[in-house]
Amino acid sequence: MEPVFFARRAAPLSPALPAAAAPGSIAFDSGHASPAVLPDLTAEAEVALTRCRAEALQYGPRPGLPELRRWIAEFMQQDGASVNSENVLITNGAKHALELVCRALVDEGDSVIVTAPTYFSAIPILRSYGATFVEVEQDRDGMNVDALALLLDRRAREGRPRPKFLYDVPDFHNPTGVTVPLARRASLLALAAQHRIPIVEDSPYRKVRFEGASVPSLASLDDDNVVIHLGTFAKLMAPGLRVGWVAAHPALVARMAQLKTDAGSSPLAQRIVLEFCVNGRLPSHIRDVQRQYRENRDRMVAAMHRVLPELFFDVPSGGYYLWASCPEDVNGDDLAAQARQAGVIVIAGSRFYASADASHPRNRIRLAYSHALPDEIEEGVSRLARAFGTIAPRRHAAVI
Amino acid sequence: MEPVFFARRAAPLSPALPAAAAPGSIAFDSGHASPAVLPDLTAEAEVALTRCRAEALQYGPRPGLPELRRWIAEFMQQDGASVNSENVLITNGAKHALELVCRALVDEGDSVIVTAPTYFSAIPILRSYGATFVEVEQDRDGMNVDALALLLDRRAREGRPRPKFLYDVPDFHNPTGVTVPLARRASLLALAAQHRIPIVEDSPYRKVRFEGASVPSLASLDDDNVVIHLGTFAKLMAPGLRVGWVAAHPALVARMAQLKTDAGSSPLAQRIVLEFCVNGRLPSHIRDVQRQYRENRDRMVAAMHRVLPELFFDVPSGGYYLWASCPEDVNGDDLAAQARQAGVIVIAGSRFYASADASHPRNRIRLAYSHALPDEIEEGVSRLARAFGTIAPRRHAAVI
Repeated sequence: MEPVFFARRAAPLSPALPAAAAPGSIAFDSGHASPAVLPDLTAEAEVALTRCRAEALQYGPRPGLPELRRWIAEFMQQDGASVNSENVLITNGAKHALELVCRALVDEGDSVIVTAPTYFSAIPILRSYGATFVEVEQDRDGMNVDALALLLDRRAREGRPRPKFLYDVPDFHNPTGVTVPLARRASLLALAAQHRIPIVEDSPYRKVRFEGASVPSLASLDDDNVVIHLGTFAKLMAPGLRVGWVAAHPALVARMAQLKTDAGSSPLAQRIVLEFCVNGRLPSHIRDVQRQYRENRDRMVAAMHRVLPELFFDVPSGGYYLWASCPEDVNGDDLAAQARQAGVIVIAGSRFYASADASHPRNRIRLAYSHALPDEIEEGVSRLARAFGTIAPRRHAAVI
Repeated sequence: MEPVFFARRAAPLSPALPAAAAPGSIAFDSGHASPAVLPDLTAEAEVALTRCRAEALQYGPRPGLPELRRWIAEFMQQDGASVNSENVLITNGAKHALELVCRALVDEGDSVIVTAPTYFSAIPILRSYGATFVEVEQDRDGMNVDALALLLDRRAREGRPRPKFLYDVPDFHNPTGVTVPLARRASLLALAAQHRIPIVEDSPYRKVRFEGASVPSLASLDDDNVVIHLGTFAKLMAPGLRVGWVAAHPALVARMAQLKTDAGSSPLAQRIVLEFCVNGRLPSHIRDVQRQYRENRDRMVAAMHRVLPELFFDVPSGGYYLWASCPEDVNGDDLAAQARQAGVIVIAGSRFYASADASHPRNRIRLAYSHALPDEIEEGVSRLARAFGTIAPRRHAAVI
């Protein structure tokens, strides 16, 4: 019997990520960590599985281990946010956190505000809970708040329901690398408070900063209790741990804990994270992460400038990604397909838009410099240049 | 700002599990493992975090590690089921597997068939996806298939939509301990195939058998591709690993993998499980588990017969639970409340019914013998007897 009973709600999902690439391909598509910065966690695991065995191998409390919730609250306090343990819910990574926000807040047909472009893995999560999208254009300072204000006013005049929340990545945005400046953050928060729309601040890359000073997080600027902050140890320690968190109003935390049907995130993974943190290993590891990804970024930027001057991009001060614009007549989907043939995997910009709106630019691609080894990066960019040459041969020929 | 925007769909959730019990309480409420059978996993973790570090600490493939999917397929083949790797999806435990089934199949207002009583953690999961319940009474052989047949015929005549699936725990049912005999399994499968209703076979306790021969699993009897089988390493190894699986039609597996927004279950936990299994430690560990829980069951049964002869129950041949009937005029909620005062935690039977239907018996309680140490079990039953005495003093006095 074919399973012909799929839910209507989840019907129009995005295709899954590209299948495994051909052997020898260079991966500029992935948010995987650099193999060079995967920490040695054997000592932490040893403690978890011996001294803490009865905790690590049983079901854990649904909201998370109390010590880890407290540690995360203090970590966020040091970053300026007024959060306590009761604001913190441990999750199986930040995507699971977003899913719990959807489970708690989204009914079929509700709308959610996103940037155009936005994080492409957020799109199918939101969609699978029946959300529709209100897209707001992004400029070099992030979501255009003036455009959002007009849009919300118009919706209010038309009597349309208030969007359930606004989703954004204010630090080293995925895919664009944009970090929202302080003034824009203040305007966004004021507008959200005025319209009573929660902001989901997805913040995986905040500490992955290569230069310049941090801008205060939305969570730390939140005087009106509108921010739902998502954090993760995936980029700070390792993705494979699957430990993240959401920091929010205690009523929402309680609700999400109730909806957290996983019988508690793995206490083994939580204990490993906690040991790493309380042993003081996190700060120096974050410095290693910053150093590695700065080197990776520098190698990619230099290579792009050298062999692909037709592509434009802002150099990000942190995060994992370059968001590159091709000449207007070069289609990002075509370039990504050609690049795959040439042995380098990049993601077409079209994948980062929640709607198929014809006004979205078609000439973008996203390159991740996080996963490839520094020496692979130049080769990967050379392959991309070859792929570009097959699509736009004359211009490319002119610059070699 | 209070989060006043909770989704309608998830509104009528069950209360969370009881808060932490008073110190010194004896826990007969929990599906936690016995501390005596939590395995030493330090060697497996060492391998995962050194030789397999690049796998264990990165994002894993969404359907799970290929080697573990293959191992599970073979494990199920040895139990008579015709499954291959492509039928297997790794999840964060069996509850997560049920959640993925809901995400794939359930729209708000869809109905799901459950036994009365049923596994109480399944109720809020199903409900949070907007499912309504069709309850079918259970006898000593499991779900009453004749009653189900009549009910489905009536619904078909009335033109009501087909239930999305049927959920059951055929081996050592939670809470009743019932194992469905072969003939009943065959009738259930035939009826499901006739009405084209998938059966979700939740099977955490199948290997926790103390005596007698196994009955073939629904998955192994499934000639019509109606069974969605849920498995877990929580009861075979340790709950804290959060590794389970669903075995189903490849189209459903692909759909659930797409809806699995956790970026892959933890490859670290999967690798630890896999090392344990391929090193051949599972069979002897399962024997330890069987031995421990048999002892626990025997201690609880003997103590109950000695000090609480007013309560009736069938002695289960496996699993974690006694499902006890009090005299008709003793309310299970009252007894559970009194027991908590007396320092032993049991769960009122009322928690195991999906609806508040007045015809459900009110005089049941569930006792788990899994978690308490053998020496605590007698003391716990004595406390329960004292609590019972405060509710039904004369009868209790008469038997001491």
